[in-house]
Amino acid sequence: MTELSPHLPVGPADIEAAARVLAPFAVRTPLLSSPALDELVGAKVYLKPETLQRTGSFKFRGAFNKLSSIPQDKRSGGVVAFSSGNHAQGVAEAARLLNMQATIVMPADAPLSKRERTKAFGAEVVLYDRDREDREAIARDIAEKRGATLVKPYDDPFVIAGQGTAGREIAEDMAALGLAPDVVVAPASGGGLIAGVATAVKARFPQAELIVAEPEDFDDHARSLRAGRREAHQAAGRTICDALMALIPGEITFAINSKLLSRGVTASDGEVAAAVAFAFRELKLVVEPGGAVALAALLAGRLDARGKNVVIVLSGGNVDADLYARLIA
Amino acid sequence: MTELSPHLPVGPADIEAAARVLAPFAVRTPLLSSPALDELVGAKVYLKPETLQRTGSFKFRGAFNKLSSIPQDKRSGGVVAFSSGNHAQGVAEAARLLNMQATIVMPADAPLSKRERTKAFGAEVVLYDRDREDREAIARDIAEKRGATLVKPYDDPFVIAGQGTAGREIAEDMAALGLAPDVVVAPASGGGLIAGVATAVKARFPQAELIVAEPEDFDDHARSLRAGRREAHQAAGRTICDALMALIPGEITFAINSKLLSRGVTASDGEVAAAVAFAFRELKLVVEPGGAVALAALLAGRLDARGKNVVIVLSGGNVDADLYARLIA
Repeated sequence: MTELSPHLPVGPADIEAAARVLAPFAVRTPLLSSPALDELVGAKVYLKPETLQRTGSFKFRGAFNKLSSIPQDKRSGGVVAFSSGNHAQGVAEAARLLNMQATIVMPADAPLSKRERTKAFGAEVVLYDRDREDREAIARDIAEKRGATLVKPYDDPFVIAGQGTAGREIAEDMAALGLAPDVVVAPASGGGLIAGVATAVKARFPQAELIVAEPEDFDDHARSLRAGRREAHQAAGRTICDALMALIPGEITFAINSKLLSRGVTASDGEVAAAVAFAFRELKLVVEPGGAVALAALLAGRLDARGKNVVIVLSGGNVDADLYARLIA
Repeated sequence: MTELSPHLPVGPADIEAAARVLAPFAVRTPLLSSPALDELVGAKVYLKPETLQRTGSFKFRGAFNKLSSIPQDKRSGGVVAFSSGNHAQGVAEAARLLNMQATIVMPADAPLSKRERTKAFGAEVVLYDRDREDREAIARDIAEKRGATLVKPYDDPFVIAGQGTAGREIAEDMAALGLAPDVVVAPASGGGLIAGVATAVKARFPQAELIVAEPEDFDDHARSLRAGRREAHQAAGRTICDALMALIPGEITFAINSKLLSRGVTASDGEVAAAVAFAFRELKLVVEPGGAVALAALLAGRLDARGKNVVIVLSGGNVDADLYARLIA
C-alpha cells in the first residue's frame, strides 16, 4: 500500500484509490439533515447513513477494497473472515461480486438476521462459542487448509482505506455545501471506520475534531487515547451494540487514531436504545444499536455540539425485527 | 396562481415558485439506490424518500407553500385543516414556522403517533367520528367562527405546486445522473402528490410514464383514469394504508392527472405489509403502509419494470411503533 503520508500507514491517496475501486459497486450514501434533530440539539447535524450502504453497513467498503487487492492467482483459494455480523456480510457480498468463495466464522450468539443475511450473500458460515473458542485461530486454520486469504475486520490498510471512502464522501459533500465540519463522530469497535474517516476528513479539513463513539464500558478507544497506548476495555458482560465489542483497538488503526482523534465519548445501552427509537420516530431511518452510538452520544449531550456543524456517522442498520420492536416500543 | 400552461391549473412555473418559497425550510430529499432492490426486480430503481421530509411526509411541501400564500392581513385568523394525519402534521409545522395558529380536524381512529405529533407541532386537534360526522363541515364551521383559512389537503393549486417540488427534485437529480426516468410511480389519496410530481417530471422528461399507486379496493384514481371522469372507489372497509382513504380524486388534481398519468396500479394490504418489511430489512428505511404502496406494486410485479429506470416515491413514514412491529415481524 502506497504510503503518501510519511507518518501513517494509510494516507489520502490510498483512500482515493479505494474510491475508484468501489465506485461501480458501493452506494454513494448521501448526507442527510433533520430540522427536528437540529432544533433538539441546537446544532447543524449532518448524518452519514451507512445503513443505506450495500449489505446495510459501511463494512462493504473495506471488504470490497481488500478483496479487490488480492492477486488473481490467489483468488481461487477464496477468503475467510471472523465477524459478529457486519464485516461478515461485507466480505460475503464482496466475494459474491468478485466470484470468490467466502467462509465466515461468526459467534453463535450473533443476531439471527446477520447470520441469515451472510448466508444469503452466498458465504459458508462457521459458528463458534464467543466465550470458549478463539475465532482468530479457527479462521487461520481454515485459511491454511484451503489456501484462503484471511480478511481482517479492521487492522489492514486496504480495509481502513475502504472505510475511509465514507469520510471522503463526507468531506466532498460538506465542501459542496460550502461548509466545514467542526466535529465528526463515528462508532468504533476495532477502529477501522473512524481511522479511515479521520484520514479523509482531516486531509480536507485539518481543523475538524474527530471523535470516536463507543458503548459505555466498551471504551477501549477512549481509554487508549487518554493513555497514549492501546488499552483493553474492562467490560465483563455484553452490550446491545453487538457490532462494537472488540477488546482493544487495532495496532494499525490505533497508529492512525492516536494521531488524528481528539477523544472518545460513550453512551449507555439505554441511551443507545433511545437513539434507535429516535431514529425510527423522527429520522425514519432503521439503525442498529451499534450503528446508533454516535447519535446516542449527541442526543445525550456528550458532544458540546451547540452552534456547530456536526457530522454523525450511522454505521449500520442490521438489527433483528424482534429486538427492534422492543427498542422502539 | 400563474397559469403558464394554457390547459392545466398548475404549471412548471408554479412549482418553480414553490421551490423558492420552500428552499429555506423543506428538506431536499435525495434519490436513493439499493443494489439489492435493483437485483430483485431487474431494474434501476431510484427511491424518493419523502419519509425524510420535515414532519415525515411530503405533505409539508404543499402545506408550507399554501400557508405562505396567505396574505399577511389574513394570517392572524390562523388556519384549519382536516386530515387523517400527514397533512395535519404538515399544516401544523408550516403554521408553527410562520407563527400562525393551526386547528386540525382528525378522525378519532387516526394513528396515535400522527395525533400526538400534530399536537407536538403546536396545533389544536379536534377529533371526529369517521363514519358519522362530516369533517369538511366541521372544518368549515371552525373556519367561519375564527376567520381561519381552510387548507385543503390536495384540491388547491398552491398545495399541488408545493408537492410538485418533490417531482422537480426527482427531475433535477435524474438529469444530474445523466438519466431519464422511464417510469415514475407515486401513491395517491386525493391525488395532489402525483399531480404535482407529474407536472414537474413531464416538463423535463415528456416521455416518462407517470403511474399512480393505490391500495386494492381504494382504486378511485385507477377507475377514474379508465373511465375518463372522476369515479369513487367501492371499498366498504378499511385499509392499513390509513393515509390513502380518500373516496374520489380531487377536481383540480384529476384535471391534471387525467392528462398526465397513464394508468393506476394497486397493492393489497398483504403486499403493502411485505413492502414495509422489505424497506425495514433491505432498505433500512421506515415507511408507513400508505407510503409504501408504490414500492409494494413494484415488488408485486405490477410495473413491467425490467430493464427500466424506475422512480418510486416513498411518500411518508409516520407509523405507530406497535403496528410497525407487527408489519416487520
